[in-house]
Amino acid sequence: MKKIKLGLLGMGNIGTGTYRALEMNHTHITEVTGIDFEITRILEIDTERERGVKVNKDSFTQEPNDIFQDPEIDIVIELLGGIEPATGFMMRAMENGKHVVTANKAAVASNYELLTKTAEDNNVMLRFEASVGGGIPILNALTTALLANEYDEIIGILNGTTNYILSKMTSEDRSYDEVLKEAQEKGFAEADPTADVEGEDVANKLSILMSLIFKKRILPGDIPTKGITDITKKDIEDAAKDDCIIKLVATAYKNDSGEVDCFIQPTLLNKHHPLASVENEFNAVFVKGNVVDELMFYGKGAGPLPTGSAVMGDVIEIGRAITKNIAFDI
Amino acid sequence: MKKIKLGLLGMGNIGTGTYRALEMNHTHITEVTGIDFEITRILEIDTERERGVKVNKDSFTQEPNDIFQDPEIDIVIELLGGIEPATGFMMRAMENGKHVVTANKAAVASNYELLTKTAEDNNVMLRFEASVGGGIPILNALTTALLANEYDEIIGILNGTTNYILSKMTSEDRSYDEVLKEAQEKGFAEADPTADVEGEDVANKLSILMSLIFKKRILPGDIPTKGITDITKKDIEDAAKDDCIIKLVATAYKNDSGEVDCFIQPTLLNKHHPLASVENEFNAVFVKGNVVDELMFYGKGAGPLPTGSAVMGDVIEIGRAITKNIAFDI
Repeated sequence: MKKIKLGLLGMGNIGTGTYRALEMNHTHITEVTGIDFEITRILEIDTERERGVKVNKDSFTQEPNDIFQDPEIDIVIELLGGIEPATGFMMRAMENGKHVVTANKAAVASNYELLTKTAEDNNVMLRFEASVGGGIPILNALTTALLANEYDEIIGILNGTTNYILSKMTSEDRSYDEVLKEAQEKGFAEADPTADVEGEDVANKLSILMSLIFKKRILPGDIPTKGITDITKKDIEDAAKDDCIIKLVATAYKNDSGEVDCFIQPTLLNKHHPLASVENEFNAVFVKGNVVDELMFYGKGAGPLPTGSAVMGDVIEIGRAITKNIAFDI
Repeated sequence: MKKIKLGLLGMGNIGTGTYRALEMNHTHITEVTGIDFEITRILEIDTERERGVKVNKDSFTQEPNDIFQDPEIDIVIELLGGIEPATGFMMRAMENGKHVVTANKAAVASNYELLTKTAEDNNVMLRFEASVGGGIPILNALTTALLANEYDEIIGILNGTTNYILSKMTSEDRSYDEVLKEAQEKGFAEADPTADVEGEDVANKLSILMSLIFKKRILPGDIPTKGITDITKKDIEDAAKDDCIIKLVATAYKNDSGEVDCFIQPTLLNKHHPLASVENEFNAVFVKGNVVDELMFYGKGAGPLPTGSAVMGDVIEIGRAITKNIAFDI
């Protein structure tokens, strides 16, 4: 039985969800992979918060080097969020020979070249499945099982907060302001909802998807982006008259010149389009490959446990690569 | 540049689709993987058929050992269909040290233990993504990115022919016999449609899914299975009155005793269920993991190119494992 020790940067909601995912399914993961994963060190100031998981308080540290320079730790999981200090921490981890898993869309979208080059230079793996679509294993699929395809277009519903607001406005015939307020009360929207409702969160995710699918770097701030704050009940009623529904859709495609165009905006979808039935906090990504044709991936785009599922999927992939136990497991 | 040579067993529709997928995207695949894949030998009697791809006729052979004993071939792709001689051929390939990729649901479902044990004993990889859901990368996702989950239930629409028939009966208010006849004329249904419409094809796929998800072997013939031949226009109209739609659904779940129950039968789905919007020849698999929550994968469950996408995805995975080039590619 191989043991692989993990260092965790940040134990907020997503860090706790990841810890809990491993705690819940540790026996299962060990049986299937033959690897005993353990989170041994946690960079976190708040050591007292009641998280509903069993944590050895000696695991907590406020000194990042306790993780980066711990020779027993193979994989660092970065769940701090925000561009800095997260990017710098990931670089230092990789420079110290640690593999890195992150859910940090802002850091990956803004510093994609820097992070991937640092991984390559240090011969370590960098994975960020949880940064796009939460629990949906879309990046893994696009970079492994679907690699035999080229793509002309990718479109997605990539933000649960805005999809929840538009879904409720549609199904309950209510105004944007009313539904936003309710979403904030229920914890589905932040007190300052700007990053969600103005499309900035989606721009980070679309930037990452374009980097992978088209090998084309477009910074999130350079993507033409329009959020949902102007959508009225009348817009939704008018759409319904044409058998359509309004969703905040991220689109990237190759134009006739072979260049990549992209934009994020409220979009009319015919109610028979596969994305039209994606409701509430769910996310979905729709791609059309030149051999596989249409595909859609649907699931929870946020939340501690779904995000933890994606983080642990990356951890398991790296763990298997470390043990090279890839020859006949299925 | 590493070169990996492939042997192909069978060049019918799926074999041709796989050959074409590699031909179409060879430059792309080579760039992304750093591996030059080439199909060098093909076991096939019909060397004259016009397939729309460029094949060197010297590649064709009618002697299986020309592939199994060719020291230059690393991976054998089995696309003959049927339980035998396909199973025996896959065994011989693996006993000769070849990795095996197959789309053959009947052979894998019937001989799962034998085939996986032979792979393990010979330290080779066996992959069969294309055997369930055609182009949808569901097996890969369940066995890699989603490994951190345990599942209580999996349900799927796993047969394009029956879903096409039920979709047309629903949207065009026509009888089973009328739509079946049209599907046969269009090539969407076989002259003898029994394996599709009676659910046998779905039983093979559900058996494979249960082997992977629940580590539980139930032979296809032991799955309680009811096809769609008795479905009437009235059944569909009655369902619509309750806001439901009828689909041929495969279900497997853990019952209260922790045992796996399974069945395949025409099923009423509320029109808001994600599977309800899966129309015509599309397939979809819906799972609920204990950390990721609800997920759905949607795409083309059959056809030469979508199936070829899945076959080539497996070939690429094995090729990367052979070259061990897994440390930092994304």
